[in-house]
Amino acid sequence: MASQITSTALSRTESLNLGALSLVCVAIFVRTLEGDGEPLVASLALSGFAFAATYATIRWLGPTFIKAGLKGRDLSKVNNNHYLPECMGAICAIVYLLIIIVFIPFPFYKDIVVATSGGGNRDVVMNVEFVEKGRLLHKFPHSKLASFLSAIISLQSITLLGIGDDLFDIRWRHKFFIPAFASIPLLIIYFVDFGVTSVVLPTFLQPYVGRELFDLGILYYVYMAAFCIFSPNSINILAGINGIEVTQSIVIALLLAFNDALYLLTPYPHPATDSHLFSLFFLLPFLGVSFALLYHNWYPAKVFVGDTYCYFAGMIFVVVSILGHFSKTLILLLIPQIFNFVYSVPQLFGLVPCPRHRLPHFNARTGLLEPSVTKWEKEKQPHPIIAQALRLLAQLKLLQLKQDEEGQIQETSNFTILNLWLVWRGPMREDTLAIEITVMQTLVGLFGLFVRHRLALLVFREDNLSIRSAV
Amino acid sequence: MASQITSTALSRTESLNLGALSLVCVAIFVRTLEGDGEPLVASLALSGFAFAATYATIRWLGPTFIKAGLKGRDLSKVNNNHYLPECMGAICAIVYLLIIIVFIPFPFYKDIVVATSGGGNRDVVMNVEFVEKGRLLHKFPHSKLASFLSAIISLQSITLLGIGDDLFDIRWRHKFFIPAFASIPLLIIYFVDFGVTSVVLPTFLQPYVGRELFDLGILYYVYMAAFCIFSPNSINILAGINGIEVTQSIVIALLLAFNDALYLLTPYPHPATDSHLFSLFFLLPFLGVSFALLYHNWYPAKVFVGDTYCYFAGMIFVVVSILGHFSKTLILLLIPQIFNFVYSVPQLFGLVPCPRHRLPHFNARTGLLEPSVTKWEKEKQPHPIIAQALRLLAQLKLLQLKQDEEGQIQETSNFTILNLWLVWRGPMREDTLAIEITVMQTLVGLFGLFVRHRLALLVFREDNLSIRSAV
Repeated sequence: MASQITSTALSRTESLNLGALSLVCVAIFVRTLEGDGEPLVASLALSGFAFAATYATIRWLGPTFIKAGLKGRDLSKVNNNHYLPECMGAICAIVYLLIIIVFIPFPFYKDIVVATSGGGNRDVVMNVEFVEKGRLLHKFPHSKLASFLSAIISLQSITLLGIGDDLFDIRWRHKFFIPAFASIPLLIIYFVDFGVTSVVLPTFLQPYVGRELFDLGILYYVYMAAFCIFSPNSINILAGINGIEVTQSIVIALLLAFNDALYLLTPYPHPATDSHLFSLFFLLPFLGVSFALLYHNWYPAKVFVGDTYCYFAGMIFVVVSILGHFSKTLILLLIPQIFNFVYSVPQLFGLVPCPRHRLPHFNARTGLLEPSVTKWEKEKQPHPIIAQALRLLAQLKLLQLKQDEEGQIQETSNFTILNLWLVWRGPMREDTLAIEITVMQTLVGLFGLFVRHRLALLVFREDNLSIRSAV
Repeated sequence: MASQITSTALSRTESLNLGALSLVCVAIFVRTLEGDGEPLVASLALSGFAFAATYATIRWLGPTFIKAGLKGRDLSKVNNNHYLPECMGAICAIVYLLIIIVFIPFPFYKDIVVATSGGGNRDVVMNVEFVEKGRLLHKFPHSKLASFLSAIISLQSITLLGIGDDLFDIRWRHKFFIPAFASIPLLIIYFVDFGVTSVVLPTFLQPYVGRELFDLGILYYVYMAAFCIFSPNSINILAGINGIEVTQSIVIALLLAFNDALYLLTPYPHPATDSHLFSLFFLLPFLGVSFALLYHNWYPAKVFVGDTYCYFAGMIFVVVSILGHFSKTLILLLIPQIFNFVYSVPQLFGLVPCPRHRLPHFNARTGLLEPSVTKWEKEKQPHPIIAQALRLLAQLKLLQLKQDEEGQIQETSNFTILNLWLVWRGPMREDTLAIEITVMQTLVGLFGLFVRHRLALLVFREDNLSIRSAV
């Protein structure tokens, strides 16, 4: 099995395009420094630059990763006897972190200027004499800065842990809890800095409880920690075909950004504007690095993303939604992931045997993907109750099940949404499956946002977006 | 070459001792939660726990690291045909980061309590109703929190980059600048949050400049970035024998902690108390993880520390000294490292050929270390000026030089402080060399602190420690 020697050089067209994009982005970025330091424009420019940097670095470092043992074979291809670089999400994460660190001063530009020069004069870099005399520090929104920094710490933690996972191939049962460690900085800053642990009760519950707000206390932290554990893992288990980890993350990020835009485009300044700007600052560079990764990871994949990317993506979503106080919205956008997790439970918890890989089966003859299956031998039939449940699922078209003449179960399809989709839609090419799942994720997400902003008024007294009184 | 299969289990005595230490530390830690949340006590307890956790994890994960390709051979041993785990500093860094993240709330405990309950009632966890009603956020020292967080971000960045370096074996010329990236968060927070770029001028210069303070402006940031690059690299190049990376770091950390203690034990509350407490909070857990690593890395080493540890140690020193405003003190403690760097310049900059490894030569017959040498072939003699300089250095006893009868240079010892020490003191055992260098580092450091606190009064109007008027 030879490592494939691919060219690491960018083609002439690629170099020109990436060079041009970088130049434009750097130019825009520099202009924001000269002007008002408009953070959203700076963030967009940095995100474009992040795309170019990630695109090129993934190409350049492929062989280095293979040499360091970060490699894998693509099981769903005919000619799969060469290694592809694995764990390329680490490059995304590191480019992202560098970009977001450079971006730190921008959301605070106006505050720095006010604090530095006492108003009026905006040219902060030139006015060192003002700086020297000390700043009006009490004006500076330090708590905003602290939550920005805590978000970065959480993302760096998940990157470190993700790389550790990719390097050492930690067992599934252990790695499930990895994101819990990365949630600690977030929870601690939440504790130190916000401490708001109340939730708004649905209107129909309010008469019984006697108040609008219900304080969850320490349970709120448990909820957030659980969320931190769930989101990265849910992205990580909806995986196994080229591009799917990245496309689902891009869809969720785009929908979150769309939701943020709704708040920024209201006719009056919305009270949650800051939270949603904050969210955009974290999502835009993520979209930049993710699109670059997608280019290399899309069918037929030239690189793999690794657990690092899935964890990182999941953590981005958690960070923006917890610090932006819209974690319920994120839940609505994660519905396919939640379904996939719940559907996986029988295998994850060992009720049904779980093979090392559950990705769809590649039929080399047809070139199409088919549902992968778990075989049941005659002497190892499932417990009667489980067998009954499996048959019920098969009747509900939620499982593919083969029985012999005696009614003994021969094989059942593996419990993942990808296999289920193949059960429903029949064998298809790998890229078609990725596209269909992505479209489904988009539609479900859009519906989720619709529910969030329209139907929520039936359950809650007011929507965050359009405050109005309900009966 | 077989990987050595060493037992990863802790011995009975080790388990008992580590278990007891952990228990005591956790008990003390929990007591601080019940009492005043005294942060220094909590930090000490966490540091003890960090020692136990690092000690055990290094033992447990050794084979995993070897399996992942993070391994190396010990060239200075007779029986060196087996691999030892490399990059164990990564374990130190990750344990350290988890501990310091958990520690975040402690320095702010009193502030959280005041902000939460409005004074009087200290039991923050039980008083969720106060939390619910919103905190008196303006009372909270957010800027202190932000610098704490930025320090963590810098340390996480250097860890990520260090692991990348250990994995991919980045070339010397490239990796020299790795710490620059990790300095960005520190500099940005410094810019956003402090912005003090003035330095106190030595008294004898003040009449010429006409003022006490001199504003370095942007040069101050260049100075800090250079410092961030220098400190980690200087630790990284004073390496090559078992234990030396860790002992020098421990000595510097202990001397910094001793310096901090001087400020905390003044009869009146010193204005810099907070900076030096901050410094201790970062140094104590570092000492905890370093002593655990030293146990495994001391002669004969069972693990190697990797670049990650050296970078991480160097960055800890930079972080505490920059955010604590005592970077000049750190320079005094780094004198052996600075000497080693300056002495290495001829080889680092290619004036004298630089082999891949410059560690002392192990004489398998005697079992002692001797200075390693660069050979000069007859047809490749140094440039006459360089040859003259080499002869001068040899006369000054700063180099070992062999000439043939015709006066042609045959070999010169490599330009590191370890080789020079062997030139001075003759061949010695590896552990003796490590001890002697460590003792030298300690003495030079103590002298540095003496200069800092006593002789500085001759050059500056006042010492930070004992403010008094000078003529």
